[in-house]
Order: sequence, then C-alpha cells, then structure tokens
Amino acid sequence: MSTTPASALVILNQPSRHAPGSLDDVAPMRFVDPDAFHVGVRDLGITRGDGIFETIGAVSGTPQALEAHLRRFARSAAALDLPEPDLDAWRAAIAAVTDALAGHSEAAIKTIYTRGIEGDGRPTGWVHGFASSDFTAARQVGLRVVTLDRGYRHDIASTSPWLLQGAKTLSYAVNSAALREAQRRGADDVIFVSSDGVVLEGPTSTVLLFREGQLVTPGPGLAILDGTTQNCLFAFAAQRGIPTALELTTIEHLHSASAVWLVSSVRHAAPVTAVDGIPRAAESELTAQFNRYLAERDA
Amino acid sequence: MSTTPASALVILNQPSRHAPGSLDDVAPMRFVDPDAFHVGVRDLGITRGDGIFETIGAVSGTPQALEAHLRRFARSAAALDLPEPDLDAWRAAIAAVTDALAGHSEAAIKTIYTRGIEGDGRPTGWVHGFASSDFTAARQVGLRVVTLDRGYRHDIASTSPWLLQGAKTLSYAVNSAALREAQRRGADDVIFVSSDGVVLEGPTSTVLLFREGQLVTPGPGLAILDGTTQNCLFAFAAQRGIPTALELTTIEHLHSASAVWLVSSVRHAAPVTAVDGIPRAAESELTAQFNRYLAERDA
Repeated sequence: MSTTPASALVILNQPSRHAPGSLDDVAPMRFVDPDAFHVGVRDLGITRGDGIFETIGAVSGTPQALEAHLRRFARSAAALDLPEPDLDAWRAAIAAVTDALAGHSEAAIKTIYTRGIEGDGRPTGWVHGFASSDFTAARQVGLRVVTLDRGYRHDIASTSPWLLQGAKTLSYAVNSAALREAQRRGADDVIFVSSDGVVLEGPTSTVLLFREGQLVTPGPGLAILDGTTQNCLFAFAAQRGIPTALELTTIEHLHSASAVWLVSSVRHAAPVTAVDGIPRAAESELTAQFNRYLAERDA
Repeated sequence: MSTTPASALVILNQPSRHAPGSLDDVAPMRFVDPDAFHVGVRDLGITRGDGIFETIGAVSGTPQALEAHLRRFARSAAALDLPEPDLDAWRAAIAAVTDALAGHSEAAIKTIYTRGIEGDGRPTGWVHGFASSDFTAARQVGLRVVTLDRGYRHDIASTSPWLLQGAKTLSYAVNSAALREAQRRGADDVIFVSSDGVVLEGPTSTVLLFREGQLVTPGPGLAILDGTTQNCLFAFAAQRGIPTALELTTIEHLHSASAVWLVSSVRHAAPVTAVDGIPRAAESELTAQFNRYLAERDA
C-alpha cells in the first residue's frame, strides 16, 4: 500500500519559453523536498513581492477549473510584465503534483512565479500542493464578515494599471492585514469596499449574492480578480435556469440580499452569516448544491 | 591581503525574543552563502509578501542612520502585527555584515523579517549586504520623474491602517510596476501622488523640495514612510540655518520649487531634472553638500 505525502513540490526549470532556465540540470521539472529551502534571498518574489500565483483546488487528483486558472495566471503575468509563462510546462507540473496528492480527497495546488533573482533575467517557478484544511464549518455554518475600505476607487484598474488591481500578485500583505483586522473585530473574513462605496471582493475570495431571483457578482469594470469559482457557479446557475448578472453592489445589498457567499477555489462556497455584526440569512439548500457542484467538477 | 566579498548574508536564529527561533542550532546568527537557497516555499514572506524590510547605507564599514532605520523597522513590524523584533540581535547581525563589507566604499545592507513558515509561529530574519551600484549619475546628473497616481487619499493611513501605508513591507510589486511605467514613459523614477492630488513619496525614496527658502518634505499626516535620509538632511539644514518644514505639496510645487530631490539611504540625494517631461532646474551646490554630508555621516 502506498501512502500519499502531505505535500509535494515541483520546481520548473524553465517557467517561460521566453527566458532562460533557472536550474543547472536540463530536466523540465523535478520533485524536491517541500520542507527544504529552494528560494534565494535575492529572489524578487521575496524582496519585492514581485511575482504572481494561483491556488487551484484538486479533488481526488483532479485539478479544478485548471484552464481558467491558467488563463488568469497568464493575465497576471502580463500585468506585471513578467515573461509569458509556458502554460504547457505549468500544466505538466500541476498534473505531477496533483497526481502525487491524489490520495487526498481535497488538496490545494499553488503555482508561484516570480521575477527571479534580481538582475539575472531568469524567473522562478514552482508548484506546491498540500492536503486541504477541513472547510466543513465554513461551508456549512458560514462566515461572519466585516466590510473594510480597500482605499481605491472602484474603477482604479482602468486609470492606473501600475496599481496591479486585478492581478493575483505575491504582494498580499494588505490582504493578510485585513484578515487580522477582521479577527480583531470578532469576524472570520473580509469584504473589501472601494473608496466610493462599491463592494469589491474578499482578500482571497469572490463575493456572490442571491438577490431578486438572480445570482449576482460585483461588476463589471471593477478593480478585482476575475473569479474562477464564481465563473463555475455561474455555469451551474445557467444549467439550472437561474439568471446571473454582474452588478454594481453596495453594502446595503449585502444586508438585503437573500443570500451572500464568499467563493474561492479551495474553500468553495461559504455562506455569509453576518455583515459588520448584523446577522443575515443564508440559503442552505443552494449552498449545499453549490458545494456539491464544485466538488464534482471534473475540469 | 584579504579580499572583501561582493556580498554577505547572516541569518538570525531568533529575530524576535517573543517567538521561538528558526534554526536547529543555538548560535544567535550565522554567516551563510548568499547565493545558496535559504527560504522555504511556505514562507509567508514569499507566498504573501508578509514581512518587512529596511535598506541601510554603509560607508566604508559604518552603517548610516542605523538607529533611525531600526526604529522604523520596529514600527513596520508593529503595523503588521509581527512579533517585536529583537533590535539587539538585528544590530549585531547588521554590524557583522557591515564589517564583512568594510572594504567597499559604499554598500547596501538589507534587513528582511517575515512572518515565517505559515502556521509554525517562527518568524524568519536575515541581513543581506552587498556592494552598492554606482549612483554617481543619479547624484550628479539627476533623475527624470513622472508623477503617478497612488490610488489612495492622502490621509488613508489614519482611517484604514490595514492598508499598511507607512509600513515598509515586502509587498512592493506596485512600486516595481510604477518604476516600469516610468521607464515606459522615458523617465527614471516616480513620485506618487494621492487620489486627492497631494504629493506623497517615491517608490523607494522621499521627496524633498527647496522652496521659498525652506527645505520642505511632504507632510504631515500623509500615508507615507518616515524618511530616514530626509531626517538626516533636515538635521544638516538645521546646522546650516536653513529652515525646514513638512508641508502639503502639489504637483505644481514640483514644477515651481527651486529644487526637488528624491532622497534615499543608498542612492542618497538625487536631483529631479524633469517632472512629467517638463525640465526643471537643480541646485547643484546644495546637492553636492547634501551628498557630502550623507557620505560622511558616522552614525
């Protein structure tokens, strides 16, 4: 009987065809010890948070929404002027790590791509997978959220692309600080709001609302990530005949909607049970349907 | 004859007295090969840009404005809810690295402090020093800058501390993106402006102006870093009887001031020769005095 490791790590030799490889050997990728050191202190990923990532859910060895994640990964790379990622190389590395963790019912697969060691022109790339935490409570009991100012106007991405809103960068210190602020306020998670009062996204999730018979996500034209899980749930809604829409959303909508969720690739759909300390209702049956659908995706 | 290495790296065993050490051995610090790998792929410094840094100038083996940097380092740590850094341990590590590089007339000493491997509670800390680039051109010829929207109101730090403005975090991807935008526009550097039109700071520098006979830096109450080099130059100005002030500053002031500089710990005082493509005058003699003073600081 083989045992499944708790985690697996693959380093890519050449994460982009447009830049030289990063390793001395010529294998396109190699498995290495996830607990050993693999990053240099001059890597711009750590000195400047100058890189991008995706976190992909895997269910029993199948990565979910893989192509949507890879498309967003490539868009993030372009936003940061990183060399275009070699998506075939990334696909192969993701498959290798996912296969290695197929014994886990749920795993998280992180792709990390940095500008590499300052000045040498070789980007750094790896895929790190690990067994997921147990998100049963978040999925079934739900999350208390607080709304926090994101500081930017809702349309900042269209005027100021150097602010990198809408790219999934390694510069996530603000997202982590926001989650600590939520804990200080007795909550579990955060919904960011623009300086002009528009609901944006969570630090690591997309906001979904069920409102006036429609499944709604904030948009269009907002300075937020294109949600891979939200897109899957819109496809589910289309199958079920539930209308969907991108709509400018306010905090008042978070209170008045029939249901609100934070959706993300690994935690899946977590109902929001309170906003800024005010309890709100959930749609348990729809939540359960969402999570069954997300768990059973085969691509 | 001994040779000075191009760089030196010291890893701290216990960067905070309030958190367990990160190494198996008990030495408080150890020199390691700067080009080897020393960071794990689960370090929150790389997965989230969740950490802080300082860059300290060293002239012939003497770190400059050391205590001001350490005070700011501790303030950044507090802003990120990191365990309070053990400043004695950091002082010792900085001294060791600076000594190792004393043969270089100018060196940059970076202190990096991260939240460490996710979930294990042990922060990561190291001091990495290396010979400085040659900044003669920036100091003598100067810099063409563009102003770029920082996206935030000028007073955002007072309303939304989770945005970490004023902390020197590892989440610097936006600063790097802004510098690339400057290059695209044919410029060398950036001055960030708030969404409400107030001049803030450079991505890695503080703005100084000479205006109406005063040495001015943008402030007070702005969402920017407290400039260690600016503080030194205000002390120099005080010695020379030049009045100093923190004043709310506009782009128009950048055009109309007698002189504008970007000042920073390693590049020192670089005169601004153009703002958004419009040339502007410099004060060569004052610039030279600034840079002599900064080079000759002994603490």
